[in-house]
Amino acid sequence: MDVREYIETNASGFFAALKQWLAIPSISGDPERCEDVRRSAEWLARHLRETGFPTVEIWETGSESGRGLPAVFAEWPAEDPAAPKVIVYGHHDVQPVEPLDEWDTDPFAPVERGEQLIGRGTSDDKGQIFFHTLGLRAGLAASGRTAPPVTIKMLIEGEEESGSPHFAELLRAKKDRLACDAVVISDTTMWGADVPSMCTGMRGLTEAEISLHGPSVDLHSGSFGGAVPNPLHAMARLLAGLHDENNRVTLKGFYNGVVELTDEERELFAKLPFDEKEWLATAGGSRAAYGEEGFTTLERIWARPTAEINGMWGGHTGPGGKTIVPREAHAKVSFRLVAGQDPRSVQEALTAYVAENTPPGIAADVHIPGPGVRPCFSPIDSPGVLAAKRAMEKAFGKEVLFTREGGSGPEADLADILEAPLVFVAVGLDEDRIHAPNEKVDMPLLLKGAEAAAYLWDELANSL
Amino acid sequence: MDVREYIETNASGFFAALKQWLAIPSISGDPERCEDVRRSAEWLARHLRETGFPTVEIWETGSESGRGLPAVFAEWPAEDPAAPKVIVYGHHDVQPVEPLDEWDTDPFAPVERGEQLIGRGTSDDKGQIFFHTLGLRAGLAASGRTAPPVTIKMLIEGEEESGSPHFAELLRAKKDRLACDAVVISDTTMWGADVPSMCTGMRGLTEAEISLHGPSVDLHSGSFGGAVPNPLHAMARLLAGLHDENNRVTLKGFYNGVVELTDEERELFAKLPFDEKEWLATAGGSRAAYGEEGFTTLERIWARPTAEINGMWGGHTGPGGKTIVPREAHAKVSFRLVAGQDPRSVQEALTAYVAENTPPGIAADVHIPGPGVRPCFSPIDSPGVLAAKRAMEKAFGKEVLFTREGGSGPEADLADILEAPLVFVAVGLDEDRIHAPNEKVDMPLLLKGAEAAAYLWDELANSL
Repeated sequence: MDVREYIETNASGFFAALKQWLAIPSISGDPERCEDVRRSAEWLARHLRETGFPTVEIWETGSESGRGLPAVFAEWPAEDPAAPKVIVYGHHDVQPVEPLDEWDTDPFAPVERGEQLIGRGTSDDKGQIFFHTLGLRAGLAASGRTAPPVTIKMLIEGEEESGSPHFAELLRAKKDRLACDAVVISDTTMWGADVPSMCTGMRGLTEAEISLHGPSVDLHSGSFGGAVPNPLHAMARLLAGLHDENNRVTLKGFYNGVVELTDEERELFAKLPFDEKEWLATAGGSRAAYGEEGFTTLERIWARPTAEINGMWGGHTGPGGKTIVPREAHAKVSFRLVAGQDPRSVQEALTAYVAENTPPGIAADVHIPGPGVRPCFSPIDSPGVLAAKRAMEKAFGKEVLFTREGGSGPEADLADILEAPLVFVAVGLDEDRIHAPNEKVDMPLLLKGAEAAAYLWDELANSL
Repeated sequence: MDVREYIETNASGFFAALKQWLAIPSISGDPERCEDVRRSAEWLARHLRETGFPTVEIWETGSESGRGLPAVFAEWPAEDPAAPKVIVYGHHDVQPVEPLDEWDTDPFAPVERGEQLIGRGTSDDKGQIFFHTLGLRAGLAASGRTAPPVTIKMLIEGEEESGSPHFAELLRAKKDRLACDAVVISDTTMWGADVPSMCTGMRGLTEAEISLHGPSVDLHSGSFGGAVPNPLHAMARLLAGLHDENNRVTLKGFYNGVVELTDEERELFAKLPFDEKEWLATAGGSRAAYGEEGFTTLERIWARPTAEINGMWGGHTGPGGKTIVPREAHAKVSFRLVAGQDPRSVQEALTAYVAENTPPGIAADVHIPGPGVRPCFSPIDSPGVLAAKRAMEKAFGKEVLFTREGGSGPEADLADILEAPLVFVAVGLDEDRIHAPNEKVDMPLLLKGAEAAAYLWDELANSL
């Protein structure tokens, strides 16, 4: 029985089991649902044992605070102890379901509608973790082996939708048990049902709040206007100066070390059927694309670092006029970072920029709320990415293209702490309505994901 | 009996009468005090009759809305029907008294403390109107005449502290009765008790609110940041671009027609004992002076036009971070204008500037809430100013210097509607705490004001 036959034969059992798991409302953000998150972990642990993992453990988190939600760890060693070790990362917790009255069905009573399975967690992320168990069994059945060709370690988090507050701590605590040669991430999307693709990186992030202080009180603009510095003017100049005329960020050293797009990557991005007009419609009806000179929209979102003003305030913001020189001005800014950039260097460059460009008479203060999120990236010609691409192409029967994520996530911690390359293998779609009412997944895509997962371990065994 | 003797002889009666008037709480901003404002007008009308004005009338205002507070008009014709006609402008309403617990005495039970008279309206503006009646009687007594050498028209408003909502309407309605060759304004201040000075102009004002609209909703800065225009960036650039590197306003034609300071005026300004460090302390502890290149602080405040950002807001302004491309940005701006500038032209230049400098993909909207306030100005070598200067110098026995007001007021309406030059004759001080608790006036200065007023009419009769 080959992989595809095995999957077809076992599909209905697969979906029946997935529905059981989906019925557990494992909302990590809702304190009332703690026990459900725990039940979800236990359900998954049981299922992984049934799948054949010899080691399955529930890992408590938040030992310091004592308030974490459990992750599930499972390990299935390869026969050959020298074979590569690979982690599969995903999460078993789900988003809240409000507003509940916008759901057509009960979010925790998953139902099939044609080829779609509807319910919370179908795409993000239970469905995408689940295809690995079917894929692994299909690979073993087709090869006649009793153990996978690489050591597989499942690490399924229970707090991802709450910002993974204890995940880095867990990774550090369990670093030896998590030792690996690659991390497979199954928590993202493909370009489209007909355009299979793999993500190769996510942008990093660092945030800051800039405050400028002028006079100790708002001043009458008739008596003082034009003769003392106005913090709002200073703020406008500071913020306007963050970009040059080509919309490049002006912070000193900002682009130092940035991993530039290769010609091949740009060509592959250009193969994606991207409709800018349609995209602008999804961008809140934005009226025009815009950004760093010399790059396309997809390149700007995925592979270029940015500086964005997220908020700005100061002076009189209520109705009517108030002719004042305001006492202070504030702005929240954030930077998306790409491979080769370090949040810390950007924070230092911003702090220096503000200090150098604050006019006499104004006191500046830059508050950096946290260390930021590091970017993560795997080159398209790296062994893990190429192996996964071959597995995906075998499953989908067509060329697999590359995308990236413009957003930021805890995935960078996996790469940094475990010191292993990331490989994104996922079959979710942007239209899956994750985090929204009526979340769904395309069932044929989950089966394709299982098929790709079945091929993946041989490909990785031969590459890493 | 000369002027000075007459004033000394009648001083105690003068202050006794003034205290009666001050005891009437004519707060125009408090609807409960309407009747008190009316009583104040009636008290003043009676007093002007007693002073000798043959014509005294109470003028109702707000005929259209029926909700105005009364002004007092009085006229005392010169013997010679060809003599110049001069209006004295002031107001008999006062500011509210809150916070009441910060007053050391009852604001409407005026008391003497040494040489100071303490109470609401002592300086702003009842005391300063009142010195005219004593001055006029002193002048007549000293000359032995029964009528003044110019036709004097008193016009004492009852809504100045409420923004003079019906004043322009009144001026237009009564234009014929108010026909005049000059308007004497007694509602400002001198540089100091030892540094008598005259104001020669006030800045104009025009305000605007700029709104920039981008996407219809806030966008995720990971998914869209760097690829669609951010309204806050656009706003920062717009606002930063309002000034050039010399802090001059960049609006097209902004300085066209501006009446430049003469060398003489600059020299006279420079004679004022101005302590910049002390001034910065009063400017809310501002840490440095700042402004248009090539001008001193006093020149910047008094004689140069400005652009000021009064408020600015958009995006996430609450606690914590929110990595968005915000849907819109707003700013309130205002411009102080000097002689030769027209609020309307500045409004048009701003609207054009915003339209020309809004990037593609952003929609801009400039809201101008009203026509603005025109600047007013009398050259230091104009006949009315020179005449009043001579009168002041005779009273004070020393050189009278010149100042201007950085703020804006309804005085420009007097000049524009009545088509007459303004002459500022006042003896208030900046430290009189007008609009604040414990308002006071220096009684010797009120008597000096009366003396200057006594000399003023002859000087004007010979000059206009």
